[in-house]
Amino acid sequence: MNYRMILYLSGQILRVLGGLMILPLLVALIYNEPASRNAFAFTALVLLGTGSLITWKKPENKSLYNREGLATVAIAWLLVSIFGGIPFLLSGDIPNYADCIFEITSGFTTTGSTILTDVESMSHATLFWRAFSHFLGGMGVLVFMLAILPHNDTRTMHIVRAESPGPTVGKLVAKMSFSVRILYGMYIALTLIMTVFLLFGGMDLFEALCHAFATAGTGGFGITNNSIADYNSVYIDVVITIFMGLFGINFTLYYLLLMKKWKSVLQNEELRVFLGICVVSILLIAFNIMNIYGSFWQGLRYSSFQVMSTVSTTGFATANFTDWPVFSQIILILLMFVGGCAGSTGGGLKVMRILLLFKIAVRQIRCALNPRAVITVKCDGKAVEKDVVSGTAAYFVLFAFLLALSVLLLSLDGHDVGTTVTAVITCLNNVGPGIGEVNPSGNFSGFSEWAKLLLSMDMLLGRLEIYPLLVLFTCRKNK
Amino acid sequence: MNYRMILYLSGQILRVLGGLMILPLLVALIYNEPASRNAFAFTALVLLGTGSLITWKKPENKSLYNREGLATVAIAWLLVSIFGGIPFLLSGDIPNYADCIFEITSGFTTTGSTILTDVESMSHATLFWRAFSHFLGGMGVLVFMLAILPHNDTRTMHIVRAESPGPTVGKLVAKMSFSVRILYGMYIALTLIMTVFLLFGGMDLFEALCHAFATAGTGGFGITNNSIADYNSVYIDVVITIFMGLFGINFTLYYLLLMKKWKSVLQNEELRVFLGICVVSILLIAFNIMNIYGSFWQGLRYSSFQVMSTVSTTGFATANFTDWPVFSQIILILLMFVGGCAGSTGGGLKVMRILLLFKIAVRQIRCALNPRAVITVKCDGKAVEKDVVSGTAAYFVLFAFLLALSVLLLSLDGHDVGTTVTAVITCLNNVGPGIGEVNPSGNFSGFSEWAKLLLSMDMLLGRLEIYPLLVLFTCRKNK
Repeated sequence: MNYRMILYLSGQILRVLGGLMILPLLVALIYNEPASRNAFAFTALVLLGTGSLITWKKPENKSLYNREGLATVAIAWLLVSIFGGIPFLLSGDIPNYADCIFEITSGFTTTGSTILTDVESMSHATLFWRAFSHFLGGMGVLVFMLAILPHNDTRTMHIVRAESPGPTVGKLVAKMSFSVRILYGMYIALTLIMTVFLLFGGMDLFEALCHAFATAGTGGFGITNNSIADYNSVYIDVVITIFMGLFGINFTLYYLLLMKKWKSVLQNEELRVFLGICVVSILLIAFNIMNIYGSFWQGLRYSSFQVMSTVSTTGFATANFTDWPVFSQIILILLMFVGGCAGSTGGGLKVMRILLLFKIAVRQIRCALNPRAVITVKCDGKAVEKDVVSGTAAYFVLFAFLLALSVLLLSLDGHDVGTTVTAVITCLNNVGPGIGEVNPSGNFSGFSEWAKLLLSMDMLLGRLEIYPLLVLFTCRKNK
Repeated sequence: MNYRMILYLSGQILRVLGGLMILPLLVALIYNEPASRNAFAFTALVLLGTGSLITWKKPENKSLYNREGLATVAIAWLLVSIFGGIPFLLSGDIPNYADCIFEITSGFTTTGSTILTDVESMSHATLFWRAFSHFLGGMGVLVFMLAILPHNDTRTMHIVRAESPGPTVGKLVAKMSFSVRILYGMYIALTLIMTVFLLFGGMDLFEALCHAFATAGTGGFGITNNSIADYNSVYIDVVITIFMGLFGINFTLYYLLLMKKWKSVLQNEELRVFLGICVVSILLIAFNIMNIYGSFWQGLRYSSFQVMSTVSTTGFATANFTDWPVFSQIILILLMFVGGCAGSTGGGLKVMRILLLFKIAVRQIRCALNPRAVITVKCDGKAVEKDVVSGTAAYFVLFAFLLALSVLLLSLDGHDVGTTVTAVITCLNNVGPGIGEVNPSGNFSGFSEWAKLLLSMDMLLGRLEIYPLLVLFTCRKNK
């Protein structure tokens, strides 16, 4: 392990984090919020100072392999979780440090679960930083760093692979560092377009930006107590519904669209399945809830918003779905596991994995019935590599064990079975709300401090897809 | 497909089923229950007659391969589910046919879930047939047929493989038909020993036999409204606890014990893991519930009974575990998925599969951290075949999809989330009780007719481990 290089990159992360805190600092200055101003200024200075000290001397050996890539990503995410919430504590907005860790981890991992009982009492700077953490975490904190700083290409590849969600990582262009910049460019462009749309809906710039950031990262932190329901506007509902869908799609497809490769986009199997799942779920729930809202069209409005919010793992709400029939609730809980497409900012297992798992199940049936048959798993018309197939099944097994272990541990905190199980599901899949105490109108303030830290760890494990964090707990001899 | 031979074997199944109904008929005669006497006599005659007609002419081509083995097992189990409950209907004990199907499927699949609200109002013949169906289903209906009728060895192998639970099937001796008889011999011997133990505990012969049958098949149908709690006897609790454990262990190990191969038994990895899971779960729950029962020892009594009942998927109860803390409830729900050892009469995923899945998860972590490493999954010190490893992971994926689909469909019946989810979990794993409406003091009478049939199908899919039933829904060209 190249510890020197990992330390150096960690220092850079601290510098970048400190530098980014200048944005909420500006917000605090604009809205004249002295407590937040001091908190963000102090934290930014300390992080910039510490980071600069650590990165003072560049390491001679800059090589970085798979294991170091995983370790760097794990350390980077732990650092932003530990230090990112300090301004909340210093400004007095969130007086408990465990709460701060939960809140900022929920932000960076784009989960959107909150411990706040009254979001509206927060300062503008705090609300901005919460929303902005979604935007940063969505595409990846390290990927952001790589996009703005010059880096060697092999190194970049290992880090991007460790931080990007989905079973495989594709490059847009030959050079990984260019790919990263193109992706971030499209990400920023989409976010800005959404901001403009929200401005037209009557939001002020602050509201529009916060909601665009939270949607872009498929996070889901709102700035009002009842999430999007408080706006009670069909226009805003529709805009957010559409953009939640857009941010749940593999960004590579947007690049293909820009390159005018329409055919590849239309034939993309994951996209088709994603859209199919969305349409079927929306229609089923719309029919199921139409009696509650008086008409099919009103049902469709609430159903489409909630389905896109859940499948993209954003977690915004225009209605409390725990008041809906159990059939609708079960659909939404199952959608939490599906999540967005690979290579999007969405969480969950990813549509690509669900697709592969489904094909693995079908192949297994066919093999059981014809033991001598040799059947390959295909995707987009091509055979999927054996390692990817077995790796996907094994990832699912690992995910299930992690889910079971987390539920078992969290049950010690004494909440009802529904709350306990869905709190873990929603955090591990980076969604946001669950049922019971953590329903869309509820929050996570009822959990003990250790339970909040456990759920924060689940969010990190879900966002980083397990492996990077495990590298920190395993030992191996140096090469 | 050799349809002639499948039809012939189906006829034999009907004959065997009819013949076995003579036992509850005798019970009806002893206890002077005319309604049940007539019902069982009529059904037995019809089944014996129909079966004899079908098996009048032996097919010339008696060959049976994998696919035919699966189809035969599927058809056999559908037949006993459809016709086994007819006497309940004719005697008037269970006036609804969907209820009859649910009840007898629950019996043969050794699930033990019931739609009866007042078990004690049933006739002795009905109670006996319910318990006896557990005994038959535990080791396998077809395996029973093979044990009593002379059969070709290759054929036997395909059927036993399709009906026996667990990822692999081992032969005790070179000839499969001998193996089957040895297994059934040990099964009957253990059941008789248990009956004697229960007689010493003050039960009369009828009670002792019914409980021994229900324990042997790890089924769990009781003959009183509050299951074993009604006996309120430490001796009976202990006897049943121990025998639930014994019937949850791979029967091959008893054969090895008889052959005095102590070392192989002690070193058996699945057995060690099974015992480890039991001991840890019992202690955790005992500490968790000791305050409810006043002392650790009382806690241990209820905890050990409930853990062994759940992990062996028997489903007897001495206490309503939904009154226990959530931590204990979550442990029990997780144990439902574990189930007994492969080659036992227990349900669930089987300890062997959990063990393999755990090793697959560990291997996956190691591979993610060292992509170039080649790591084999080992069990009992030997490398497990690649097909078994990938098949186990794929089986788990298939099981998860089936669980999700069943929960989704059942949620249309409008019960709360906890009831809906655990009803499917308990039926698919052949356990018996769940939480919510289907808690140990509750029952399944609140579900609609279609929901009862859906849950019956889940029980069959769980008992037969999915594949045999699917063969009926797939088409393939004849060879």
